[in-house]
Amino acid sequence: MENYVKDIVEKARNTSYSLATLNPSLKNKALLKMAGHILLYKDFILKENEKDIELALKDKTQKSFIDRLILNEARLEGMSSSLREIAELPDPINRIIDGWQRPNGIFIKKVRVPIGVVLIIYEARPNVTSDCAGLLFKSSNAGILRGGRYSINSNMAIVAVLKRAIKDSGIEFDPFFMVEKTSHEIVDRLLKEDEHIDLVIPRGGESLIRKVVQNSRIPVIKHYKGICHVYVDSKADLKKALRICVNSKVQRPSVCNAVETIIVHKDVCKKFLPRLKKEFDKYKVEIRGDSEAVKLLKDIKKEKQIGWNTEYLDLIVSLKIVSNIEEAIGHINFYGSRHTDSIVTDNINNAEKFVKEVDSACCFINLSTRFSDGYQFGLGAEIGISTDKLHARGPMGLEDLTTYKYIAQGDGQIRE
Amino acid sequence: MENYVKDIVEKARNTSYSLATLNPSLKNKALLKMAGHILLYKDFILKENEKDIELALKDKTQKSFIDRLILNEARLEGMSSSLREIAELPDPINRIIDGWQRPNGIFIKKVRVPIGVVLIIYEARPNVTSDCAGLLFKSSNAGILRGGRYSINSNMAIVAVLKRAIKDSGIEFDPFFMVEKTSHEIVDRLLKEDEHIDLVIPRGGESLIRKVVQNSRIPVIKHYKGICHVYVDSKADLKKALRICVNSKVQRPSVCNAVETIIVHKDVCKKFLPRLKKEFDKYKVEIRGDSEAVKLLKDIKKEKQIGWNTEYLDLIVSLKIVSNIEEAIGHINFYGSRHTDSIVTDNINNAEKFVKEVDSACCFINLSTRFSDGYQFGLGAEIGISTDKLHARGPMGLEDLTTYKYIAQGDGQIRE
Repeated sequence: MENYVKDIVEKARNTSYSLATLNPSLKNKALLKMAGHILLYKDFILKENEKDIELALKDKTQKSFIDRLILNEARLEGMSSSLREIAELPDPINRIIDGWQRPNGIFIKKVRVPIGVVLIIYEARPNVTSDCAGLLFKSSNAGILRGGRYSINSNMAIVAVLKRAIKDSGIEFDPFFMVEKTSHEIVDRLLKEDEHIDLVIPRGGESLIRKVVQNSRIPVIKHYKGICHVYVDSKADLKKALRICVNSKVQRPSVCNAVETIIVHKDVCKKFLPRLKKEFDKYKVEIRGDSEAVKLLKDIKKEKQIGWNTEYLDLIVSLKIVSNIEEAIGHINFYGSRHTDSIVTDNINNAEKFVKEVDSACCFINLSTRFSDGYQFGLGAEIGISTDKLHARGPMGLEDLTTYKYIAQGDGQIRE
Repeated sequence: MENYVKDIVEKARNTSYSLATLNPSLKNKALLKMAGHILLYKDFILKENEKDIELALKDKTQKSFIDRLILNEARLEGMSSSLREIAELPDPINRIIDGWQRPNGIFIKKVRVPIGVVLIIYEARPNVTSDCAGLLFKSSNAGILRGGRYSINSNMAIVAVLKRAIKDSGIEFDPFFMVEKTSHEIVDRLLKEDEHIDLVIPRGGESLIRKVVQNSRIPVIKHYKGICHVYVDSKADLKKALRICVNSKVQRPSVCNAVETIIVHKDVCKKFLPRLKKEFDKYKVEIRGDSEAVKLLKDIKKEKQIGWNTEYLDLIVSLKIVSNIEEAIGHINFYGSRHTDSIVTDNINNAEKFVKEVDSACCFINLSTRFSDGYQFGLGAEIGISTDKLHARGPMGLEDLTTYKYIAQGDGQIRE
């Protein structure tokens, strides 16, 4: 097993040097070929996917798990069109992001370059395989992909098809590698390879991510969870507030940028809460209030221990009444996950105070939390949403899969 | 001990919120007061420093160690003037680094903000205490400082004086905290506090840094070592090459941006090597050549195992002859530490190939490696030189002690 890991990481490191100088139009040609091959070889991929589903059914895994595992023509179309979209994005490599001349005549340029070798660890969905392969290839990073145990046949098939497309485009080396062995020890070994792997991105549930962080010597970019808040200020336009609260909760409750806690200023709660309750009732949203909220809205659940830091991912919302904006900000910084928090207010000072003092990746004014998303931000692609502060924060686009180098040019200067 | 660590990290987290909104001119006023107080209370600091030296002498620590530990008036002057220089730097916080409007009318701004809580782990030199306290304060980060066991009295005295200056400037909270307990277990505990500490920067030898990386759940920015190369190309101006090789090695051999290996193209080695040897002889530089170099330069040392990845930090240099630029680049990417590498050439294609394919933080053309330095780059301050690729790479200035947040403003938009 040690040799197996050593072999993959050394190949990936060598590949990363070739990728760093690959012509952008050749990369795009290969991405379009990858998009085409996913459909051309769909029978093969679907047949391999069936093997995975059979095993998952035999092992009696959860229905939702199997749903994520299933591939069909529509899903393959989706994977294919994602690859086409990646081809159309601007190339993030070799962009000069800063540059200046020093008094001694030296020119310094700061230039975007690939990170190098990136390990992605993920769970059931086989579409992650083609999405990640495409994004890493576009950003000229060598990819090591490690999918879930139950999707191994699908993943191997997808990677074989994508590698075929790479070859058919005239590229002589493999830009990504699927880890075929599915034991947990393989992951632990990979996470020690800080000489050859530059970055790990775990994509999956919180327990997977915590395990990676605890075992990794390689830098990790992570997304733990989304405990997002909407704060309805004393100076809020209550019509906007209502729209924003409802949209943030019900438009898609199962995702990380859905709201989990609504905080309402005491001055507006008598007017606002009954309306909010009426709207939430329409969508069958369960409200869990603090004691103040329960006094106002009789038939809501009062919980002794409200899950202020629980990511419900469901039609459940916590409700808190505060005496002032400071209390709201304090609550968010204490219980939030530094993901996305929104204030509804018409007062410019309160808006400024909120976005300055809330320590989150995305601080919104008069907006649904659901806008916290790479596509909504116009980044063109989304690798994920980082709740970290280092390297990349918030919605991550292709640029976040790059680093930079300094290139300095002189004419024989030496230091005196 | 658990309570002690818990207490410090929670205080630091709370402090970080207050620091994030501190007025820039108040920060600068406090930094100037810190600079003044270091001199005003010099007798106290020097007396405490004596206690440290006494203990280090009693324990028979190395002479060079004690030299680093000693404070005197000149060194206090240096610490004071560093703090004054930090006050004069532009404030890195609240700078808008990008901004755009989306088709639906939402405005998005990407704004520099402090990282939050930063832990610095360092060894003997007490001046690191005031430098780091100043840089973290200027960048509005709460600092947890953990110095070496033998400098604890000096460090406590410096921090007491700096905190006094903070108070005398009218700031009501402590922006930095010295870890008073000096056991190793304290460090291990701190490195698990990923909820409350956002970044660790270890400053010291490679073994300290490896230990931190292995034990930390918190992101680390590190500098392992500087294995820097100068490659003298077949198209090099040999006068420039000579000047650059000598300066890169001898101007200050004990630092990380000094060259360790000189690589020479075979077409110029007959002409170049005897001249290089003559110059190096003047400075008593020991040359360790590969077999080709030994054939050309009779009386140099041939080592069976040349330390291609040894950081000599001394007047020793490795010498390698290559057949082409590809071989030089391959050697650098394999043995180098991704710090700083320089090509000497008059050929534009070779220069471009070198800076593109060498996977190092600083790729230089016709320049001494000694220019790889925050001050030389014009960054105004230097936190260190990162050999990492994530977050910060190469010489780190104040900006590298910041992260960003997205602030988006709408008018009640929701997602359909």
